[in-house]
Amino acid sequence: MKNKTLNELGEFGLISNIKERFAELLPNNFFGIGDDCAVIPIDDKYSYIITTDMLIEDVHFLRKEIPLNDLVWKSMAVNLSDIAAMGGEPVAFLSSIAIPNNIPASYLIQANEYLFDIAKQFKIGNIGGDTTSSKKHIAISISVIGKMENSKIKYRHNAKIGDIVCVTGNLGDSAAGLDSILNNRKDNYLIKRHHHPFPRIEEGLFLAEYEEVHAMMDISDGIASDLKRIQSESSVGIQIDIDKIPVSEELTTYCEKYNLPTYKFSARGGEDYELLFTVSAEEFGKINSEYSKKFSKPIYPIGKIVKDNSLKFTKNNTEIELKEFQHFSKKNN
Amino acid sequence: MKNKTLNELGEFGLISNIKERFAELLPNNFFGIGDDCAVIPIDDKYSYIITTDMLIEDVHFLRKEIPLNDLVWKSMAVNLSDIAAMGGEPVAFLSSIAIPNNIPASYLIQANEYLFDIAKQFKIGNIGGDTTSSKKHIAISISVIGKMENSKIKYRHNAKIGDIVCVTGNLGDSAAGLDSILNNRKDNYLIKRHHHPFPRIEEGLFLAEYEEVHAMMDISDGIASDLKRIQSESSVGIQIDIDKIPVSEELTTYCEKYNLPTYKFSARGGEDYELLFTVSAEEFGKINSEYSKKFSKPIYPIGKIVKDNSLKFTKNNTEIELKEFQHFSKKNN
Repeated sequence: MKNKTLNELGEFGLISNIKERFAELLPNNFFGIGDDCAVIPIDDKYSYIITTDMLIEDVHFLRKEIPLNDLVWKSMAVNLSDIAAMGGEPVAFLSSIAIPNNIPASYLIQANEYLFDIAKQFKIGNIGGDTTSSKKHIAISISVIGKMENSKIKYRHNAKIGDIVCVTGNLGDSAAGLDSILNNRKDNYLIKRHHHPFPRIEEGLFLAEYEEVHAMMDISDGIASDLKRIQSESSVGIQIDIDKIPVSEELTTYCEKYNLPTYKFSARGGEDYELLFTVSAEEFGKINSEYSKKFSKPIYPIGKIVKDNSLKFTKNNTEIELKEFQHFSKKNN
Repeated sequence: MKNKTLNELGEFGLISNIKERFAELLPNNFFGIGDDCAVIPIDDKYSYIITTDMLIEDVHFLRKEIPLNDLVWKSMAVNLSDIAAMGGEPVAFLSSIAIPNNIPASYLIQANEYLFDIAKQFKIGNIGGDTTSSKKHIAISISVIGKMENSKIKYRHNAKIGDIVCVTGNLGDSAAGLDSILNNRKDNYLIKRHHHPFPRIEEGLFLAEYEEVHAMMDISDGIASDLKRIQSESSVGIQIDIDKIPVSEELTTYCEKYNLPTYKFSARGGEDYELLFTVSAEEFGKINSEYSKKFSKPIYPIGKIVKDNSLKFTKNNTEIELKEFQHFSKKNN
């Protein structure tokens, strides 16, 4: 293991290494590494939840390609999405930025204005951070704190055999947006979906009200990769019907135009920040009906939780192999 | 303001810009920007406190100069020092790192071992973080969470006229250590003090027990700069006698050898991470006596809080001008 590069070691190896090593130091009633957020106890009824994400220029974004308002939005949205994934309500954040000295102060002042806009929209207070210079690349590190009832926290480890696997919206747009940038065939709709993901806070809060919603997480690495977390944390098997994954008309058009398989983006592509959750089959109808009434859109069932401890994808009723979305960036929580 | 560079805008301008802008969004009973830590309420008796710091390669450290164990130690120590500065006890942390892909995994695995060592020493749990690649420079962002009684929280805004201004230990070693690296006249003792600052957690917890300890912060930018925060947050004046600032024999020897004024380091140099606090003159003797018994070292009085709203430094009874330690790195909290 020691002679491998970071890419070879990969995210699973590293997370389990850290999780095991530090387990003994976890304070009482804290939930640490291995989910979208850590849980910090308040009392018998409530907890804070906290998540952190780092965005590095030329790894997570290209300064020339992403407008500043979208960069600020996305830096915050990926964290808000982790709060949504536990079913929590965001309350405050810390934001740190390192920025090359040749960038004028107006850039940072403008960034703070955009930060204020999204903070106001989600009603979250700025409680600190750190601003410093960097030699070449911008680095952004944001942590968001949420609050919720202990009984409503949705973990990845709670999927139950027989559950229906669901998502809250179209997948693949974000990865196709990135593809369209990198291959110089820019598609404005898809690029906006890549640069401006919408964190599903309201949907998460709604789903957290139901005991029968068992496991939940957000889709950051693509379901091929993300489902492995639920599979492994819950010790279950998962079967996904790729044809049931919801996709936008824009993605379909883009894939037809460039002769690309849609599932390359919908099943393997990351950064959609929709919610991925499992719900008991008996209650799916009722919950979907109430959800549809509230949000004017349905829940999308895409597969089921099974006993056999494997992750299988079928397309046209035939099992296929899915290569994961490849990048080296892993959340510890 | 908008056409200035970050260096010209400076830290005070930026912090007050952020603090004012976001004030309206601060949740009830939260204390946000403007101190060593933010305060997150638990109940009537307790709060969590949280701080975050970002370290960027070639800005805050030189990879070739700092051993990995010291880099990991310092990244954590600067945050622990912020917890100490409020009088709190650290309980958990989140750590994010961005690292170039050509660095072998063994580097990160070794870093996690060093992180475990310091976490174990201070009994703090790792509750998450983010590991990602970077193009060229290492970026480290750590947040530490502490817990403490509400009535014992020491803010910067509570200095009272008549208070004695004190520090917990020698100042200037760290800045001289950096000076010795940059000018190729390496001094091992001073370099170790630069690379391996010791967070004064125990001292902070001790001082927090006394109501008569009014304002407290840690010394990160050098007292010339740090005292301005207490002055401005508490709306008081401060008089410092530079000759009373405690310095090490090693610093004295170094300054004599290279014909440098000691106060260049002791009063202007940053990153000592000793505690800087104000205490009522009546109680100083009693507190110093108990402190000395517990820690086998005294508290060092270096000046007093006065009515006149200015910050003055005297040396040999003559007022002198002190240029601040110059760098662009500012904590929002």
